[in-house]
Amino acid sequence: MEEYTSSIRFDQRLAAVDIRGSIAHARMLGRQGILDAAEADALVSGLQALLQDIEAGRVSFRVEDEDIHMNVERLLHERIGPVAGKLHTARSRNDQVALDMHLYMKQAIAEVMAKVRELQAALVEAAERHLDVIIPGYTHLQRAQPVRLAHHLLAYFWMLERDHARFADTLRRTDMMPLGAGALAGTTFPIDRVQVAEELGFASLYENSLDAVSDRDYLIEFLAAASILMMHLSRLAEEFILWTSEEFSFIELADAYCTGSSMMPQKKNPDVAELVRGKTGRVYGHLIGLLTVLKGLPLAYNKDLQEDKEGVFDTIDTLLPALTLFAGMVRTMRVREDRLAEAFARDFSNATDVADYLARKGVPFREAHAVVGRLVLEAIRRGTNLAGLPFEVYQAASDRFAPDIYEAVALERVVDARTSRGGTGREAVLAQLNMAKAVLGE
Amino acid sequence: MEEYTSSIRFDQRLAAVDIRGSIAHARMLGRQGILDAAEADALVSGLQALLQDIEAGRVSFRVEDEDIHMNVERLLHERIGPVAGKLHTARSRNDQVALDMHLYMKQAIAEVMAKVRELQAALVEAAERHLDVIIPGYTHLQRAQPVRLAHHLLAYFWMLERDHARFADTLRRTDMMPLGAGALAGTTFPIDRVQVAEELGFASLYENSLDAVSDRDYLIEFLAAASILMMHLSRLAEEFILWTSEEFSFIELADAYCTGSSMMPQKKNPDVAELVRGKTGRVYGHLIGLLTVLKGLPLAYNKDLQEDKEGVFDTIDTLLPALTLFAGMVRTMRVREDRLAEAFARDFSNATDVADYLARKGVPFREAHAVVGRLVLEAIRRGTNLAGLPFEVYQAASDRFAPDIYEAVALERVVDARTSRGGTGREAVLAQLNMAKAVLGE
Amino acid sequence: MEEYTSSIRFDQRLAAVDIRGSIAHARMLGRQGILDAAEADALVSGLQALLQDIEAGRVSFRVEDEDIHMNVERLLHERIGPVAGKLHTARSRNDQVALDMHLYMKQAIAEVMAKVRELQAALVEAAERHLDVIIPGYTHLQRAQPVRLAHHLLAYFWMLERDHARFADTLRRTDMMPLGAGALAGTTFPIDRVQVAEELGFASLYENSLDAVSDRDYLIEFLAAASILMMHLSRLAEEFILWTSEEFSFIELADAYCTGSSMMPQKKNPDVAELVRGKTGRVYGHLIGLLTVLKGLPLAYNKDLQEDKEGVFDTIDTLLPALTLFAGMVRTMRVREDRLAEAFARDFSNATDVADYLARKGVPFREAHAVVGRLVLEAIRRGTNLAGLPFEVYQAASDRFAPDIYEAVALERVVDARTSRGGTGREAVLAQLNMAKAVLGE
Amino acid sequence: MEEYTSSIRFDQRLAAVDIRGSIAHARMLGRQGILDAAEADALVSGLQALLQDIEAGRVSFRVEDEDIHMNVERLLHERIGPVAGKLHTARSRNDQVALDMHLYMKQAIAEVMAKVRELQAALVEAAERHLDVIIPGYTHLQRAQPVRLAHHLLAYFWMLERDHARFADTLRRTDMMPLGAGALAGTTFPIDRVQVAEELGFASLYENSLDAVSDRDYLIEFLAAASILMMHLSRLAEEFILWTSEEFSFIELADAYCTGSSMMPQKKNPDVAELVRGKTGRVYGHLIGLLTVLKGLPLAYNKDLQEDKEGVFDTIDTLLPALTLFAGMVRTMRVREDRLAEAFARDFSNATDVADYLARKGVPFREAHAVVGRLVLEAIRRGTNLAGLPFEVYQAASDRFAPDIYEAVALERVVDARTSRGGTGREAVLAQLNMAKAVLGE
Repeated sequence: MEEYTSSIRFDQRLAAVDIRGSIAHARMLGRQGILDAAEADALVSGLQALLQDIEAGRVSFRVEDEDIHMNVERLLHERIGPVAGKLHTARSRNDQVALDMHLYMKQAIAEVMAKVRELQAALVEAAERHLDVIIPGYTHLQRAQPVRLAHHLLAYFWMLERDHARFADTLRRTDMMPLGAGALAGTTFPIDRVQVAEELGFASLYENSLDAVSDRDYLIEFLAAASILMMHLSRLAEEFILWTSEEFSFIELADAYCTGSSMMPQKKNPDVAELVRGKTGRVYGHLIGLLTVLKGLPLAYNKDLQEDKEGVFDTIDTLLPALTLFAGMVRTMRVREDRLAEAFARDFSNATDVADYLARKGVPFREAHAVVGRLVLEAIRRGTNLAGLPFEVYQAASDRFAPDIYEAVALERVVDARTSRGGTGREAVLAQLNMAKAVLGE
Repeated sequence: MEEYTSSIRFDQRLAAVDIRGSIAHARMLGRQGILDAAEADALVSGLQALLQDIEAGRVSFRVEDEDIHMNVERLLHERIGPVAGKLHTARSRNDQVALDMHLYMKQAIAEVMAKVRELQAALVEAAERHLDVIIPGYTHLQRAQPVRLAHHLLAYFWMLERDHARFADTLRRTDMMPLGAGALAGTTFPIDRVQVAEELGFASLYENSLDAVSDRDYLIEFLAAASILMMHLSRLAEEFILWTSEEFSFIELADAYCTGSSMMPQKKNPDVAELVRGKTGRVYGHLIGLLTVLKGLPLAYNKDLQEDKEGVFDTIDTLLPALTLFAGMVRTMRVREDRLAEAFARDFSNATDVADYLARKGVPFREAHAVVGRLVLEAIRRGTNLAGLPFEVYQAASDRFAPDIYEAVALERVVDARTSRGGTGREAVLAQLNMAKAVLGE
Repeated sequence: MEEYTSSIRFDQRLAAVDIRGSIAHARMLGRQGILDAAEADALVSGLQALLQDIEAGRVSFRVEDEDIHMNVERLLHERIGPVAGKLHTARSRNDQVALDMHLYMKQAIAEVMAKVRELQAALVEAAERHLDVIIPGYTHLQRAQPVRLAHHLLAYFWMLERDHARFADTLRRTDMMPLGAGALAGTTFPIDRVQVAEELGFASLYENSLDAVSDRDYLIEFLAAASILMMHLSRLAEEFILWTSEEFSFIELADAYCTGSSMMPQKKNPDVAELVRGKTGRVYGHLIGLLTVLKGLPLAYNKDLQEDKEGVFDTIDTLLPALTLFAGMVRTMRVREDRLAEAFARDFSNATDVADYLARKGVPFREAHAVVGRLVLEAIRRGTNLAGLPFEVYQAASDRFAPDIYEAVALERVVDARTSRGGTGREAVLAQLNMAKAVLGE
Repeated sequence: MEEYTSSIRFDQRLAAVDIRGSIAHARMLGRQGILDAAEADALVSGLQALLQDIEAGRVSFRVEDEDIHMNVERLLHERIGPVAGKLHTARSRNDQVALDMHLYMKQAIAEVMAKVRELQAALVEAAERHLDVIIPGYTHLQRAQPVRLAHHLLAYFWMLERDHARFADTLRRTDMMPLGAGALAGTTFPIDRVQVAEELGFASLYENSLDAVSDRDYLIEFLAAASILMMHLSRLAEEFILWTSEEFSFIELADAYCTGSSMMPQKKNPDVAELVRGKTGRVYGHLIGLLTVLKGLPLAYNKDLQEDKEGVFDTIDTLLPALTLFAGMVRTMRVREDRLAEAFARDFSNATDVADYLARKGVPFREAHAVVGRLVLEAIRRGTNLAGLPFEVYQAASDRFAPDIYEAVALERVVDARTSRGGTGREAVLAQLNMAKAVLGE
């Protein structure tokens, strides 16, 4: 039972924020005259010394003290004696644990945001390096239209930009100070919550004590933002896995992000990409787990809420290295231009351009579409692509074709013709790149 | 197969936004000279007439036309002939469906936000009406400290305030214009995306065409915000269900929100509260459903993405009436003051105040806690509460007790002593009420 | 409110089982003398006539009658007058709705099981047809070892065999009769539950009335089995999508299961495979949805439980066509042997066999592994595969190589050498096929 | 990267099964002549010695060896030299890890089943002890009809009986031997898989090597069964939490399963019940997590599958103590008969019996229902219950009432009148108890 209900195994990572919070609380108690100055000073210096010892690894926690808060209290008592008991004045474990978690998450979210920026920077760098590399673009995993690799990578830049914004929004709703809520109803002591909030750098306060101790929205919101981020990484992972397969062979990942096989010497497995794709599952699971915990829970604190930490901590530990590893993978990936050239030798992803060509010459789109379908079949029959069809084939298909059709189907031309804002043409991608750099430069 | 892949059954609710989007697209095609003025005019007036007919219920859709977009195109063709085919110039179904969904969600999110405000207003109104009603406050569903009912209701106000903010953030990331992305790579026509965005009232554009057609973040984010909101409603529902049980009997819900039993005439079941608590499940399910759809999906459009709509639509249809019904329930609930008075007759939720009383007289908190534990046991033995204990009992427990202990344990006094900001004292709650009204007044 | 709490929109599909259940109940009431014979007869024949009218589409339901049970009762009353009211004797809506759902699910699970068998049969048929087609086998989506396509398809046979067994287990726990539980506590009438169970073909009874009305395990279990089945289909879908990509091109799907693109005439999109992969999300969602509904729900019936139907019905409607469509896809898929031949031209998936060759000649496995790694690199450098390396290269790599190495690396030989039970060798696969056929033949 | 992809942190609990599996494999290699007898003996005795050292805690694992399998191999090599390398003959890490997990889960599922039986036994014991205790039965958390506490507890017995059956079914699909599948395609060595299966006590073999290394169904199925079990525990937890609230006060839990409050001396919090209710979330999360991992994964092994362990292990660690603690709670709970007596003083849960009384006298049920509704209101007005109404009130309500109505509404009589099989009458519950004991006695 003790082991089952104890949380010290996972909440010890709150030690530093717990002590920071207690120091701010003790100072306020002193300034407000709730404790006398000597008592407040004893608490503050005892806590500071304890924090140093913890950070130096000179302290060990006990399971029988249940959680980090009781452990800290016991350790403080061992050092400064009975005055340690006064630290708990005008405070409850409920608002204390809420404060600790808010402090911890403010740091963690900021770290995740910084790592998101790091991956975004790697994508911009890779996009610039490979600006003129053209790859097939897909819908339904069927080749659709050729696109710049840079354009493809930048799609992920913008996904991550939304992730960054989501975490920023979550941070705003995390940056609220719960201390002073007591167990649930506030306190009878003349505390000053604004003082504590300011010392700890909080932007705002909870305005309702019941809400302060039972709110876990910010954690669910963090898990939701993390789930979307992991979903994005899983999509990029999927593409890396496809692109490094023998069949695609568009890119090669650096050895550092791959492993060999114990049995098959020819293999180079994209382990990191696969593992991150797989870890999407655990993050989704943590999200649904915490939503389940909170469902139908009456106010205010219930022991169920102790279940709010492990999934969140594991999510942080999953996200941070995943982002670092992906930034490294993106930075070090090698494009296999030889294989891309082969890929385009039997490619029909410029078919739309033939249809557009006809449309520009006044052929109704649906009709143009039918003409191009027949040309594609003829090219397949002849073992060539659209650029490889003789002109008489074009003429037989429609009298609107002129010799400039060969310009229209040339790969670079096809890509650069997508001049619309946000399109894959060179100028459009350069403009996009500049916007991305501006975002990073803020 | 046709029936399985067809979406007209559920996407017909996009008819109006689809046509609005097409009108803006046609106008732009005309202004840019991609179509001539007569063609553009024919498209626009044909679409306007069609929209009127749809809204008047004079039109029926066909399953064999697969989705709303093909149905609209066919209907338009029936009315204005072959020029209808030109509407698809410089546009693909992929960016068209993305545009429709963005337009639809902008409206839907705004409606949800308005309904959230309605429930917040009902909570404020009820808090004001019941300002001086005191109920037991709970932790672990054990009575902890008495609180104002108003304070308890306002806790939900602030939860909903965060919901409102979350939807506002989601709306910002929904308010982006995808049209012009084509199938995935942009278009070769000289379109003007800014024009379309302005006409349709969008705040910004997607800056990457691949991202524009494959982004479903805003829908997942909506489902996550909706899940948190439903979680909040499930908590309030749980409390309504508890409070209307014979055992609690704190409130009575209006008949409109309850049903009788076919077999048990004495019953009045809080059906709406239960049903909304139950519907939390489906909204969580839709969230995990769409996260699953997107996991590991390579760029750009894949047919899997057709699965993005039903869960979202069902969530909207779940949220809007739930919020309306809860606002009604809150507005019409009746407080059962007689039963609350009974409840406090054997209540020890003022025990903390005795401990605080001792703490204020210099007794270390942990010691005070032990003293109060003994007093509670003695009161239970005597069949009374703390206010009912004779003074000699207090004196025997600790010599720090003075006759003012009876003031300290009086119910109103206990509650009003929680003067800290965000606490349950009368002044603190009035201040909180004013903040809540200010939020609503913005 | 009426519309929100009404369930007739989705529970009308229970009409036939509701009436079947009521007929059995009425007969029992008559036989037990709870109703007199004339009353029982009037009920039975009234219900039979009503069922015929419903099945002929001659009846319409009303939202204001809330659910299918009240609708049936009202319709019966319109036809046979006040005696209709006696049908409800010794029965409550709680046990009635439980009975209906059990009857419905018994049919539905049996249908799903039959469809699973249909897909298994299609896999066996395709495995037999393509017995000697060899494809690369993958781990980490990197080519690992060549395998028979038949072997690969049969892997799905066994997955589906487990699905079939899971549904059979679920069916056993569905095949329990709840009627007679009353609202929650049983009934005071001298009913005979065994009679009703026998007439309706149930294998057993619920032995506890509280459990009978609040059990939804069988629905969750169905959703869990359905989730695993959909997961299996999503894996096969993923492979079909990969294999029909231009890069793999191992198979071609029949046109009936694909669609073209509105903009890209060369495309043939594997829509059905993608859509089923996507629909995995909704089934996972329904599972988590119902688990959420039940979490923390006290006994016995709560209105939340009304949420048990829509997700289950939608899952049935998702599974049945998915299985039919997949059976069709498997039966009609065409193997592209030309592209498979190309694929093996630069394939190293026989590398393990070179290592095994050395191991059989006494070289420690880890050392053999290193030798092969060097040979693979040399072959890549020379633009060939292992069969294409001159013998002197082998000799330089290890003196254990003899000319029989060329036999060892020949594709058919490599595959057929996997003679172990369950392996990909011809004989092993034939044995496996026979086991599969025996399963289908039971 | 090493730390991110390493699994030794959590898979070290597979050490014993890994070695047991390797011993069986080595013996088979010896018996089949794939290794010579001396080599096989060296491997077996080396492994046995290593296992002893591990179990005695004399061995430490290294993160840089990545997983338990590599650690064991390295440790074996340190002890017996190069022959250790031969253990990997005719085996791959893919089938080895599958074997280990199957062995581990067979044990774990059996342990869970034993613990389920333990809780069932506690429920039966408590049902017997409290056979004649009557509590209100609820629907919609409104009092519906009085029931035996024994009946209520036995409802959970049957839920757990289905859980037990589900785990037994899962065990059957876990009890399959994957070794011999090699990396994915089987092996070229003349292995004997049946020998290994028999030595390790497996009931059957995987008949397809691709399936053997990529199947994780049995783990998902375990998580699904665990989710339903946790859902059941969450329902019982909810009831314990309700029943120990001041408002209900039906039972008192032993101190061992509760904690006090740091701030509120009067409280006794049902921490274990709350925590288990909360832990439902993590188990649901692990289920959805693994379903997500598998979705859309092509055959055969992918690194994503490494994510199959932590959630499963955490689920086992959650279930086993939860079942033990619940058995203890049930065994030691104290019924508060005084508070139950008070509860029935204003209870109308015998209202149905009045309606049934009238129905037996020929009043149509819907009419009887209305009569009783009026009687209930009258009793509330008079501050009494149905037994407390004077006879003239009954007579005024309907002329069918005779003085035997007072017998009909007496509490024990009301309960015992539910004589139907599975009902709450004394005889019916005794019969049910006997069936439950028979289940336990098997």
